[in-house]
Amino acid sequence: MTEIRILQNILGANERIAAENRQRLRSAGVFALNLMASPGAGKTSLILRTIERLRQGPRLAVVEGDIASTIDADRIAGQGVTALQINTGGACHLDANMVGRALEALPLGEIDLLIVENVGNLVCPAEFDLGEECRVMLASVAEGHDKPQKYPLMFSEVEAVVLNKIDLLPYSDFDLEAFRRAVHGLNPKAAIIEVSCRTGEGIEAWTDWLLARLAAGQSRTDESEA
Amino acid sequence: MTEIRILQNILGANERIAAENRQRLRSAGVFALNLMASPGAGKTSLILRTIERLRQGPRLAVVEGDIASTIDADRIAGQGVTALQINTGGACHLDANMVGRALEALPLGEIDLLIVENVGNLVCPAEFDLGEECRVMLASVAEGHDKPQKYPLMFSEVEAVVLNKIDLLPYSDFDLEAFRRAVHGLNPKAAIIEVSCRTGEGIEAWTDWLLARLAAGQSRTDESEA
Repeated sequence: MTEIRILQNILGANERIAAENRQRLRSAGVFALNLMASPGAGKTSLILRTIERLRQGPRLAVVEGDIASTIDADRIAGQGVTALQINTGGACHLDANMVGRALEALPLGEIDLLIVENVGNLVCPAEFDLGEECRVMLASVAEGHDKPQKYPLMFSEVEAVVLNKIDLLPYSDFDLEAFRRAVHGLNPKAAIIEVSCRTGEGIEAWTDWLLARLAAGQSRTDESEA
Repeated sequence: MTEIRILQNILGANERIAAENRQRLRSAGVFALNLMASPGAGKTSLILRTIERLRQGPRLAVVEGDIASTIDADRIAGQGVTALQINTGGACHLDANMVGRALEALPLGEIDLLIVENVGNLVCPAEFDLGEECRVMLASVAEGHDKPQKYPLMFSEVEAVVLNKIDLLPYSDFDLEAFRRAVHGLNPKAAIIEVSCRTGEGIEAWTDWLLARLAAGQSRTDESEA
C-alpha cells in the first residue's frame, strides 16, 4: 500500500501546483497549450509551422520539454520566438513543478499563447496536469492507425488529435477511416485535423482551430470543471 | 530523500527479479531479447518479419507488452507462434516481475529465442532490466535522425539499433549519416541495421545479426558483468 499512497501524494502535489500555474497563466492572460506526442511525431515541426502562420497573430512563446539536449529550443529560438528548454534529466514527462519554474522565467505579460511541448511519450504525459487550458496530441501516419487502442488514455484526454505526415499516406498502410473511428470511439468530441508539416498541407485548418480555441479561452475548461 | 530511497527500492527489487529471470532463462537454454522502440516504430512488424525468415531456425516465442489491447499478440499468434500478452494497465514499461510471471506461463523447454516486445516508449524501458541476454532498439526513419541526442540512455543501452522504414527515405529529410554518427557517438559498438519491414529490405541482415548473436549466446552479457 505504501507505493500507492506515495503515488497519490506525488499526483496530489502535482494537481496543487498545476492549479497554481493555471491561476497564474489566467491572471496574465496567457493561454497555455500542452502538446503531446510520440518521439518523432513532429511536435517541433508543428510548432515551427504554427509560428510561421501566426506571425501577425497572438504573441507566442514555447516551453520545450526534453530528457536531454536543446535541439528543439534552438530551432524555435531560431525563428525569433521566446523558447525555454526544460531538460527533465531522465524523467519521461513534464510535471507542473517544472512548468511552474519555467513560468517564473518567462515574460508572461508579453505572451498570448504559450505552447508547451511535452517529452516525446504517449504514456506518462497524459497523467500529469501542467496547468494548461488545452491539451492536444499529435499522431503521425508513420506510427500506424492502431495507436488509439494501444494508448487510450492519451487519446481520451485531448481536445484535438492532429494527424501529421499525411504526405506519407501513399507510401504506408495507414487506414484513415479506422483511425478516425478509433479516436472517436474513445473521445467522441475530439477534433481530428490532418496535416503535413513537411508540405504545409492542413496547417491552416490547424491554426484556424487553434485561433478559435484561443478565442473561446477558458470556457471549455470552466465547463469541464463545473 | 524519501522518494529517492523508494525509487532505489523499486529498482533494487527489479534487479533481483531480473537476475532470477536471467538464471531461469539460461537454465532452460532460452535466449531472451528485449526489443524497445517508440510507439509505431514497427516492433511487431519486425517480429513478424523475423518469424517469417526463421521458420526453419530457432524455436520462437513472443511476449507482448502493451498498456492495453491484445492487437499485437493476436498478430503474432496468427503466425502460429506462441504469444503471451502482458497488459501493463497503464505502466509505461515492462518490469522484471511482469516478465517473470510470463515465464511461468511459457513452455520454456520448447523455446530457443524469446522476443520480449516492450511498451512503446523511448524512456522508461531503458531503465528496467527484464533478465534478457540482449537489448535491441528499433528506430524509424519517420521519427527523424535527431532521436539519439534526445533519448541518449536508450541508444546507449542496446547492442543493436535497427532502423526501420528505410522505404520512406526518399520522402523524408532523414539524414542517415547524421543518425549513424549520433548513434556511434553514444554507443561506438552498436550495430546499426537498416531495414524496411514493409518491403522486406534488410531483414536478412537483421536475422543474420540475430542468429550470430544467438550463437554467441551469453558471452557478451558475461563480459559486461565481469
